[in-house]
Amino acid sequence: MPDEFSRIARYFAPLAGEAGLGLKDDAAVLAPPQGRELVLTVDQMLEGVHFLPGDDPALIARKLLRRNLSDLAAMGAVPLGYLLTTALPAVLSEDWLAGFAAGLAQDQKAFGLKLLGGDSSSSLHEISLTATLLGTVAPGAALRRNGARAGDEIWVTGTIGDAVLGLQARLGQREDPTGFFIRRSLLPEPRVGLALAGLVTAAIDVSDGLVQDLAHIAEESGLGAVIEASLVPVSPEAAALGDSVLQARLTGGDDYELILAVPPGKDEALRAACGAVAVTKIGVFEPGAGVRVCAVLGDEIPLKSLGWKHF
Amino acid sequence: MPDEFSRIARYFAPLAGEAGLGLKDDAAVLAPPQGRELVLTVDQMLEGVHFLPGDDPALIARKLLRRNLSDLAAMGAVPLGYLLTTALPAVLSEDWLAGFAAGLAQDQKAFGLKLLGGDSSSSLHEISLTATLLGTVAPGAALRRNGARAGDEIWVTGTIGDAVLGLQARLGQREDPTGFFIRRSLLPEPRVGLALAGLVTAAIDVSDGLVQDLAHIAEESGLGAVIEASLVPVSPEAAALGDSVLQARLTGGDDYELILAVPPGKDEALRAACGAVAVTKIGVFEPGAGVRVCAVLGDEIPLKSLGWKHF
Repeated sequence: MPDEFSRIARYFAPLAGEAGLGLKDDAAVLAPPQGRELVLTVDQMLEGVHFLPGDDPALIARKLLRRNLSDLAAMGAVPLGYLLTTALPAVLSEDWLAGFAAGLAQDQKAFGLKLLGGDSSSSLHEISLTATLLGTVAPGAALRRNGARAGDEIWVTGTIGDAVLGLQARLGQREDPTGFFIRRSLLPEPRVGLALAGLVTAAIDVSDGLVQDLAHIAEESGLGAVIEASLVPVSPEAAALGDSVLQARLTGGDDYELILAVPPGKDEALRAACGAVAVTKIGVFEPGAGVRVCAVLGDEIPLKSLGWKHF
Repeated sequence: MPDEFSRIARYFAPLAGEAGLGLKDDAAVLAPPQGRELVLTVDQMLEGVHFLPGDDPALIARKLLRRNLSDLAAMGAVPLGYLLTTALPAVLSEDWLAGFAAGLAQDQKAFGLKLLGGDSSSSLHEISLTATLLGTVAPGAALRRNGARAGDEIWVTGTIGDAVLGLQARLGQREDPTGFFIRRSLLPEPRVGLALAGLVTAAIDVSDGLVQDLAHIAEESGLGAVIEASLVPVSPEAAALGDSVLQARLTGGDDYELILAVPPGKDEALRAACGAVAVTKIGVFEPGAGVRVCAVLGDEIPLKSLGWKHF
């Protein structure tokens, strides 16, 4: 592995945008886009916590960006750029770094991002990575968690629950003959670019589990929420596994789909705003507190947990 | 240790500024200050790499902010806010977290910072921390590394070399009866707030070692640099150790003082701009490349290394 200055010059400087000053200064200098507000978020990816030893470095890089892009999507923001930290154990090969940088480059291009700066360190044991993403929104247009109203419908993008089944497959707890679940676990699709402003009253992305993340909207909006399990959109691959994976699907997380609060009667407008991204109505916000999950016939389903928490 | 949501609510939400939305959303939303450019930087503090196991968590927090504040100072920026990531091993006590948050609160107040957002994770082994700092400068006023001209003088703030002697003391390699060196190592003074715009042609902070960091200005400006070792400002405590610590002082790093390139004849203006912060002229930029360190009588001093590099 080359030393930190060689690493930066060879692998990261080529990723830098104008504001990154070639990664040759103490900090980035950015003229904020006129008439826009800034949206800022940061997420970590730690070996052994967020990914497994031996995982493809390009996919790690892309998921690092995508998890953060999903947070921008949940705020209705357009991606702008990012800062990166890497802490790498000395035993890591330069090939790992080349693959990691290639993954960053691929998703920078896919999502219109530029590298603004970062910090490069050694690490005693695990690989430790963070990305701080900047995006922009029109003033006052950021989607919040606290805007849902009683009677607003609960919608989700895409399908829910594939990623946790992929994690189970990677841990040897499940078959995945086509690799579909594993792909969904390693490479989520952040739902950036949807025209949700003015249409959606609240939003969050599903990182810790559908129920737990929905509960955040409910709590911040001072409401309860009820969803019907049979309405939660499922991939054909997960549907084939039947009800045995229902609890995992509803609480497993790592989906990076959006949960949206939408006033009634907006189905057509919402579908138009989401274009090629499928959206599905799964429930409604109601006065009260907490999230209830009902089966198709209306009985509440008790859940073993709501979702993932660190510790 | 409470779970991540309790940790955020109890220890970090009270530190959040308005743009942090109470740490209750997917990202921060910030109206960029009118007529200013943004300056962005990120640094890591990893247990076993940047601090020692058992170090006071309040001092770790303050040094995390101060290392980043020093990068803002090197760009001539005014601090605005920050995002934080923590990855904490499960064995850590809640007291550690309380001390860490108290240190953040103390230096937020001292330096006019607010918490904007973050990410809270578990960690398998070491504590891993990052802070992404935002500051602002007047458009075009950011201090760069590439602006020095031949004939510009080399100035430094404060005294150089105390922190590495403090690290040696902490590792049991040196006596430190008054604790002066250790304090300098644990709690640097970032030189924010100096009125350097329009006066200084280039700047950097001393994080990796005086000579290596000076070499960055020289290289980016397409120049050489010569400094006279006897002019490099030294604390009385380090002066008492004599020439035996000269190499360590010039290359040890972790000082977080500023190196400034200043056109000749500006001594008085520079001293006025720096107010209570002492500044000392130590050399000059010249045509050529590289950094030469000369003894008082003009002979070049060969250095064993220029400074610290990861790996």
